[in-house]
Amino acid sequence: MRKYPIIVDMLEHIETACRSAVENGFQSRASALKDMLIYHMGWAEDGNIKTGKRIRPLLLCLSTHLCGGNWRDAIPAASAVELIHNFSLIHDDIQDKSPTRHGKPALWELQGIAQAINAGDALFSLALNQIWQLAPRFDAETISQCSQLLTSTCLQLTEGQYMDLDFENRGRITIEDYQSMIEGKTTALIATSTKLGAMLGTLDRDKQGLFHQYGYYLGLAFQVMDDFLGIWGDEAVTGKSTSSDLITRKMSYPVMLGINRSNHFALRWEKGNIQPIDIPAILAMLDDAGVYLSTRSMARDYTDLAFVKLRAAVGDHPDYAIAEEITDWLVNRNS
Amino acid sequence: MRKYPIIVDMLEHIETACRSAVENGFQSRASALKDMLIYHMGWAEDGNIKTGKRIRPLLLCLSTHLCGGNWRDAIPAASAVELIHNFSLIHDDIQDKSPTRHGKPALWELQGIAQAINAGDALFSLALNQIWQLAPRFDAETISQCSQLLTSTCLQLTEGQYMDLDFENRGRITIEDYQSMIEGKTTALIATSTKLGAMLGTLDRDKQGLFHQYGYYLGLAFQVMDDFLGIWGDEAVTGKSTSSDLITRKMSYPVMLGINRSNHFALRWEKGNIQPIDIPAILAMLDDAGVYLSTRSMARDYTDLAFVKLRAAVGDHPDYAIAEEITDWLVNRNS
Repeated sequence: MRKYPIIVDMLEHIETACRSAVENGFQSRASALKDMLIYHMGWAEDGNIKTGKRIRPLLLCLSTHLCGGNWRDAIPAASAVELIHNFSLIHDDIQDKSPTRHGKPALWELQGIAQAINAGDALFSLALNQIWQLAPRFDAETISQCSQLLTSTCLQLTEGQYMDLDFENRGRITIEDYQSMIEGKTTALIATSTKLGAMLGTLDRDKQGLFHQYGYYLGLAFQVMDDFLGIWGDEAVTGKSTSSDLITRKMSYPVMLGINRSNHFALRWEKGNIQPIDIPAILAMLDDAGVYLSTRSMARDYTDLAFVKLRAAVGDHPDYAIAEEITDWLVNRNS
Repeated sequence: MRKYPIIVDMLEHIETACRSAVENGFQSRASALKDMLIYHMGWAEDGNIKTGKRIRPLLLCLSTHLCGGNWRDAIPAASAVELIHNFSLIHDDIQDKSPTRHGKPALWELQGIAQAINAGDALFSLALNQIWQLAPRFDAETISQCSQLLTSTCLQLTEGQYMDLDFENRGRITIEDYQSMIEGKTTALIATSTKLGAMLGTLDRDKQGLFHQYGYYLGLAFQVMDDFLGIWGDEAVTGKSTSSDLITRKMSYPVMLGINRSNHFALRWEKGNIQPIDIPAILAMLDDAGVYLSTRSMARDYTDLAFVKLRAAVGDHPDYAIAEEITDWLVNRNS
């Protein structure tokens, strides 16, 4: 993606606000707790600074901007969604027993499960505290609505996470099950980011609704693409071992489709213990069942719907092309 | 404690509101997640219904009432503090590896750590959602202040929890360390409960401040008494094995005092592996160092300070005697 100055500017403001929230949010002597969050967020001065992509806050700021608002005023909400995303990552890593995050040990690997649960809870609280810094630029009514939307979204995150964890114990998963799961786990916070951005940029309810739908479809496209890359991605680009989602038994869109379409695949999946050497034969099963093509096409359909909503909302905005390019980058990304 | 009709009435409303929050708070199919929370809250129909004492929401409603407000209007805030308390208990039990809660298996023992972390996160979100039900009885500004106070308090909870977990890895703990820890872990949410109650009952800032201090000292007294009972409590009443806090190595007020005052005790504590047969000798060490008397006297001092603040705030209220009796019951309780 080209480096638009406005995007670079947004990302800098987002990073500064998130960091300030963590560094100045605690009352007291909990400096070690703060250090845990600094480490997780990728800011530790260990010569290996690597942060997340800050997709959600970027979409939030961009939505405010495209709705005619001043995105700088929306920064507290942007930092809130990024910190909520990271709270959920800290807990996810414990729940999934994932030992690494961004190429470094996950927080729980370093600090133990007990302190990592607590650090996640702290980040959750810090995130929700950020929203109040929207005052005095916005009135109490608007800020209340933002706060309410955020906590409802957090509840949806836990509903999605419940389903995801539960999939491990279940047999066949339907498309509806899968969709419910990613609606909670991925889509909810992305749709909330674009909606919050719109709420802080315009009073036009229709436009706010279109931005919510834009984020919803973008979130679905993003997740299906993520699932696609987890099986057919280029290892050199994604940093994950290709087909690693097959090896780690992640219940993703292609796997769900494969189980429902191919008895060969379903039996092999149930058997478990997939090794790298087994991958080519398993990929052939998925290919035979049309899963490769269907997954790509599903990602494309959701992306098209995202574009439809975005265009309907702000197609005439001078910076519409930037939003289109970012959307395209998110769902066709190679990393 | 005598069964005052107003207290019985409050407790009924609190229980109904908490239950409704859990039963109606989820959007979707997460009924198993809901069931986990119903189990944790003590409402599962397994013939063994045993809930917590609902101290925090009771103090909140009582504070509203004593400040001249209608405690029924404050019920959404009361359910919020109770659910936040329970979110922290679900995570505490995982962090402390406590296998039981109210005489039943802790949630993580039944559902595993991953789902229990998630259930705690869900309860946290549900709790914060409750506060918005204060509308339309209260304006957006007041509700925002309540919400802000709640999330700041949650952050303090994690600061206290960080210290508590960290004590296990440390040598001598000072009185200041211990006090910081319980200020976060116990006092913050109790002081917030009484303050929220006052905020919903009066606009008088001085009175709100006095209720905050009342809750603060009450919280300190409550915790020191809890620590006292953990070592010298009557097993038949507390349901815990007497001196169990010595056996489980809980860093409590008497232990911290003992370590700082008695080399005999400090050495024995550092050695660890305390068995029931060792208890009498260890209790004698604490007694020799005056720890029994000092702990009682510390609880008494904090209680006195709580009474001073309560009396200064609402000493002339016709129901002041009820609040005094409840305060006394909380800090001199045998269970």
